Amino acid sequence: MKNINISNNVIRRMPRYLSKLDELRAAGVERISSNELGNQMGLTPSQIRQDFSCFGEFGQQGYGYNLASLRREIATILGMDRGYQMVVIGAGNIGRALLDHFNFENCGFHLLAAFDVDERLIGTTTKTGVPICDARDIYDYFQNHQVDVAALCVPTEQAKAAAQEVIRAGVKAIWNFTNVTTSLPEDDNVVREDIFFSDSLLALEYYMAETIDQEAKRAARRSQLQ
Amino acid sequence: MKNINISNNVIRRMPRYLSKLDELRAAGVERISSNELGNQMGLTPSQIRQDFSCFGEFGQQGYGYNLASLRREIATILGMDRGYQMVVIGAGNIGRALLDHFNFENCGFHLLAAFDVDERLIGTTTKTGVPICDARDIYDYFQNHQVDVAALCVPTEQAKAAAQEVIRAGVKAIWNFTNVTTSLPEDDNVVREDIFFSDSLLALEYYMAETIDQEAKRAARRSQLQ
Repeated sequence: MKNINISNNVIRRMPRYLSKLDELRAAGVERISSNELGNQMGLTPSQIRQDFSCFGEFGQQGYGYNLASLRREIATILGMDRGYQMVVIGAGNIGRALLDHFNFENCGFHLLAAFDVDERLIGTTTKTGVPICDARDIYDYFQNHQVDVAALCVPTEQAKAAAQEVIRAGVKAIWNFTNVTTSLPEDDNVVREDIFFSDSLLALEYYMAETIDQEAKRAARRSQLQ
Repeated sequence: MKNINISNNVIRRMPRYLSKLDELRAAGVERISSNELGNQMGLTPSQIRQDFSCFGEFGQQGYGYNLASLRREIATILGMDRGYQMVVIGAGNIGRALLDHFNFENCGFHLLAAFDVDERLIGTTTKTGVPICDARDIYDYFQNHQVDVAALCVPTEQAKAAAQEVIRAGVKAIWNFTNVTTSLPEDDNVVREDIFFSDSLLALEYYMAETIDQEAKRAARRSQLQ
């Protein structure tokens, strides 16, 4: 039921729906109208119906959405039932935050191992029992395990080399935390997803500046009227 | 020159332009056509012209963009010249990654301090000389310093309480790394920018599943033809 022409914006909203559905189900809600879901998410009901219609028909006219089945559909759309396997490259601050606090299983991923160059870390396991292996063994490890995704958490200056290494070892996707683009000439089919902290902070800065300017304008208008 | 009706997608591309311009300038490039910039960024030239036209006219027909002045314009649009000041709440893994490795000044922010509850961290300074203060002093600190943004890096279960505290203390924006929404009833004007790791990973999963399915289909077609 997957449609290849679905816009990136729709795809990006799917995890937000998932998270809202989980919150509602935890609160005991079983069914919700697109009106009510829209209210809670700051979206219009027609936007919601349009988003879901990209993937087929979920809701029943007049009855709203059954949360359990809607959640199953979204999980399938996102590929959460595929059982993809993942490793974390780099067990520094960001890598450690993922290893100790991020729930990979909740997103449908199985976390196999982490890799680092630090002798003090190699051979240890994380809080959740994930082994930290020698980064020199990445290629060999990938030959003996089905590794679908590598989370890249190495220092910026090692980003390109680490990306090349996991691609050579056969990874299908890179989850990139290095703050630099790791894309190489278009000779590979590797999916990339970047988390650029600076892009996020700059967007925040824009919206903050805009809000402050608007408030200043309103204040100026008010003082003129007095 | 700020226009309040600019789409979020345009705003989100601005930091990507900025980063590309910095890369080009570091390589000695001074001027670039929208064709060439588009090629390098995977965007059409008309998309690029359209993006920039939201904020006024930058390029000169037939001469392309002067990188130095284009960069200045984008920096102004994003508010990078406003001198906003920031603190980091929580000096655990994510907080520490920001404190030790993230270049706040590059984004136009001045990092004042970090806050934590851990007695072993309170009173120390980071690698770059930023003091780590007692989280119980957040409110008082904000009364004596102009703090515009708080980066929220506390554990998930403390996210709401920490958000409430910095809002009460007068923050204008929250940069949220807690993996949960911190928004309260619409009684505040605080700008939020969330970095949800799970949303990013789920989007990656979707695109990976899609790529794998398409490759499987192509392989099936090829084997039928043989």
